[in-house]
Amino acid sequence: MKLNCDMGESFGSWEMGNDAAAMPWIDMANVACGFHASDPSHMAKTVELALVHGVEIGAHPGYDDKQGFGRRHIPHTSQEITQLVAYQVGALDAICRLYGATLNYVKPHGALYNDMMADPSVYEAILSAVSLLNMQRPSSLSLMILARTDNRQYIAQAAKYAVPLLFEAFADRAYQSTGLLVPRSQAGSVYHDTERIRQQVAELAGGWVTTIDNQCLKLYADTVCVHGDNEESVMLVKQLHEDLRR
Amino acid sequence: MKLNCDMGESFGSWEMGNDAAAMPWIDMANVACGFHASDPSHMAKTVELALVHGVEIGAHPGYDDKQGFGRRHIPHTSQEITQLVAYQVGALDAICRLYGATLNYVKPHGALYNDMMADPSVYEAILSAVSLLNMQRPSSLSLMILARTDNRQYIAQAAKYAVPLLFEAFADRAYQSTGLLVPRSQAGSVYHDTERIRQQVAELAGGWVTTIDNQCLKLYADTVCVHGDNEESVMLVKQLHEDLRR
Amino acid sequence: MKLNCDMGESFGSWEMGNDAAAMPWIDMANVACGFHASDPSHMAKTVELALVHGVEIGAHPGYDDKQGFGRRHIPHTSQEITQLVAYQVGALDAICRLYGATLNYVKPHGALYNDMMADPSVYEAILSAVSLLNMQRPSSLSLMILARTDNRQYIAQAAKYAVPLLFEAFADRAYQSTGLLVPRSQAGSVYHDTERIRQQVAELAGGWVTTIDNQCLKLYADTVCVHGDNEESVMLVKQLHEDLRR
Amino acid sequence: MKLNCDMGESFGSWEMGNDAAAMPWIDMANVACGFHASDPSHMAKTVELALVHGVEIGAHPGYDDKQGFGRRHIPHTSQEITQLVAYQVGALDAICRLYGATLNYVKPHGALYNDMMADPSVYEAILSAVSLLNMQRPSSLSLMILARTDNRQYIAQAAKYAVPLLFEAFADRAYQSTGLLVPRSQAGSVYHDTERIRQQVAELAGGWVTTIDNQCLKLYADTVCVHGDNEESVMLVKQLHEDLRR
Repeated sequence: MKLNCDMGESFGSWEMGNDAAAMPWIDMANVACGFHASDPSHMAKTVELALVHGVEIGAHPGYDDKQGFGRRHIPHTSQEITQLVAYQVGALDAICRLYGATLNYVKPHGALYNDMMADPSVYEAILSAVSLLNMQRPSSLSLMILARTDNRQYIAQAAKYAVPLLFEAFADRAYQSTGLLVPRSQAGSVYHDTERIRQQVAELAGGWVTTIDNQCLKLYADTVCVHGDNEESVMLVKQLHEDLRR
Repeated sequence: MKLNCDMGESFGSWEMGNDAAAMPWIDMANVACGFHASDPSHMAKTVELALVHGVEIGAHPGYDDKQGFGRRHIPHTSQEITQLVAYQVGALDAICRLYGATLNYVKPHGALYNDMMADPSVYEAILSAVSLLNMQRPSSLSLMILARTDNRQYIAQAAKYAVPLLFEAFADRAYQSTGLLVPRSQAGSVYHDTERIRQQVAELAGGWVTTIDNQCLKLYADTVCVHGDNEESVMLVKQLHEDLRR
Repeated sequence: MKLNCDMGESFGSWEMGNDAAAMPWIDMANVACGFHASDPSHMAKTVELALVHGVEIGAHPGYDDKQGFGRRHIPHTSQEITQLVAYQVGALDAICRLYGATLNYVKPHGALYNDMMADPSVYEAILSAVSLLNMQRPSSLSLMILARTDNRQYIAQAAKYAVPLLFEAFADRAYQSTGLLVPRSQAGSVYHDTERIRQQVAELAGGWVTTIDNQCLKLYADTVCVHGDNEESVMLVKQLHEDLRR
Repeated sequence: MKLNCDMGESFGSWEMGNDAAAMPWIDMANVACGFHASDPSHMAKTVELALVHGVEIGAHPGYDDKQGFGRRHIPHTSQEITQLVAYQVGALDAICRLYGATLNYVKPHGALYNDMMADPSVYEAILSAVSLLNMQRPSSLSLMILARTDNRQYIAQAAKYAVPLLFEAFADRAYQSTGLLVPRSQAGSVYHDTERIRQQVAELAGGWVTTIDNQCLKLYADTVCVHGDNEESVMLVKQLHEDLRR
């Protein structure tokens, strides 16, 4: 079970996240690509930092919306989505090459991630981009998507495009017995208690999770999404790292 | 002698240039990469158009300044220049891959081009980007620079980075006997007469050019830069294309 | 019956519309404010041109989305809408003051206009901005909205904010017998025939319009929206101008 | 002697500065206007906060360069500078009106500030903007510039435009005996010692300052620029506030 974390979300003079502190404890860095956050220099710094700690590098493309941090849905055609994903992945790939680093996977960000999970045409547009980029790569980029109890449709579409999938679960989000996350608008949707989060990650490492209504839900995940926003959350990531090594 | 032309300079709803009309008559398309002009969709359209006409594709990276169209000098460190060039070249390379097209060369745009020719540290920062990107490419990207009478320093630096160079001359700009272009501020710096331009391209194809003070100047160029802004200039490009085929 | 037209939609080096040719024939210029199009310099040029021709100046604020030209719906809170409208209106107002010109009205652009007509909370957020700006102005800014057969709800809300309204109709759009425009997706939604458009403007000047199903619909409008995109449309605007003077 | 501080430099999801903590201890807030930092919503929040604490509000316009935070010189014509200053001042003025607040002064930011002090044509372009905006205001906006030992030229130019000036000194910057600041590149240019800074502010309140080479230099200042970046600097601002009240 790998820990993945959004990284490189600073922009110009604005710092965001505690990348240097969190990087040693994670396995996969989702690197912002300059559309919803970051710029070529911050991308380069993040890639260098990932290299130092032997962390896998993923492209984290988003909608072109810095003011909204890529969290606002902006209408795009399928073609535009394929193009904006390719653009951002290619840009980060080139930054990786400056440092001899390898790009490993793609995880869409924010509203683009949500749209991918909710709208099959968006999912397919992203698969198309990754698939076409993979045709000329020595090793294939994977696409990271949200783990659900039934992933068959997602797997079938990805197979058509020959794109390997990575399933992610969330360390601090409550699950419904349907396998969907409890919406953020609902009370109890986000766990703040360290022990509760450690337990959920331990469960996910075993292939299941306790739902908000105390059911035991089977859920397969390759990786758990964690956050490195501040000192406290970095301490938690370090703890989860140690828990998983035990 | 190849004709190169800036292409893909539209942005969102704003159209610029007459790409569809000019593309059939040129050999090399310098494609804007989203910083001074263009966006992922216009880049894609331009790559598709170049493919149809068998035109070589070059990345045309610029400073991140749409309002100034990349024509304003903006201070950057060498490292920042390497990073912004890599970012833009990588982005266009990925768009090319969506269409099975190949990226062939890099030609910096506007103020970045001028800074490259005037400041050895900028030139070296760009060489560094191209060189590092070339390390993992099946075929090397070339760097297009301004042809001078004495290119030895440029060649020596490029050799250190193992970056192939392409030298470009201008079809419609008057040359000084020093080999430098007559500054735009000076009268007679730009030729508007079709016959004069045709003659200059013919001369350049023969390895020389008549200077503004009527000297015969030896000047080696691989390619001549032309413009496809409007109907008239497209007609001229077509004429030059035919002249060179004869 | 006044003719209003979107103006000042160029940006940096990108030209859009034929402002100089259309300005002499219109009564009201909706000037883009730098978010979906334009920049301080193009705004200044447009204000100067409007002054020369004695054309009323309106602010044409939009969502902050140059790539989508303000035509894409981007989610905002009511407060954010009040703030982005105030920001853009204030900016254009200051540009007007540089030239001793007066700002007369506000007409939201594109997706913001559509959202205003469809969502009462957006309409109220815009009324709030205009109302608060009016408190310190010698003369009030009006808000231009789409004329409907029944405008009572719009009028009631505007009255609460003491914002004068201007109702606009469209010269080249077909109307349904409900008073709504025929959706663009539907055949026949946009008139291209000059005579048909002249007739519709003449009808609107008389307080009614022939609908797509040949009904006579009562519709009150203060102004008709026309376009100055190209030579042909400018000729039409000139014709409409002359028709209305007769 | 008033304390002025740059405020409202957050942008979208990126926070910068500790505005809420610093605002109670300052007299004048230089509010970023959306070009080098901020956006309509952060501007609104900052204006509201200034109102709560009875702090004077100044517009802090900069070059349109978020990535460079307005610290990079970007070439502009005089006209463009007048226009971009007017645009930003007008935008903040409108945001102020949403809250019944009054805009009091203009202080250019970063590279624009440096260009204003170094290049008389930039200074005049800014004076022109402020002067034209003042013509329709009940009370005049002042322009804040750097206090020098000899301000006669600046005063003479401002008098031509009838723009009131405010002179600012720096709390934590070492002065040369010429009255110019010690360049940042030089050792000892910035004071970090709290006592040294408190002493300098006390001196400036008395109309003089001790230079880096221990001279006593006469220097008139209306206001001292302080920083509210972090907890430590906010503590210092509070101390300076108390020192000046004594």
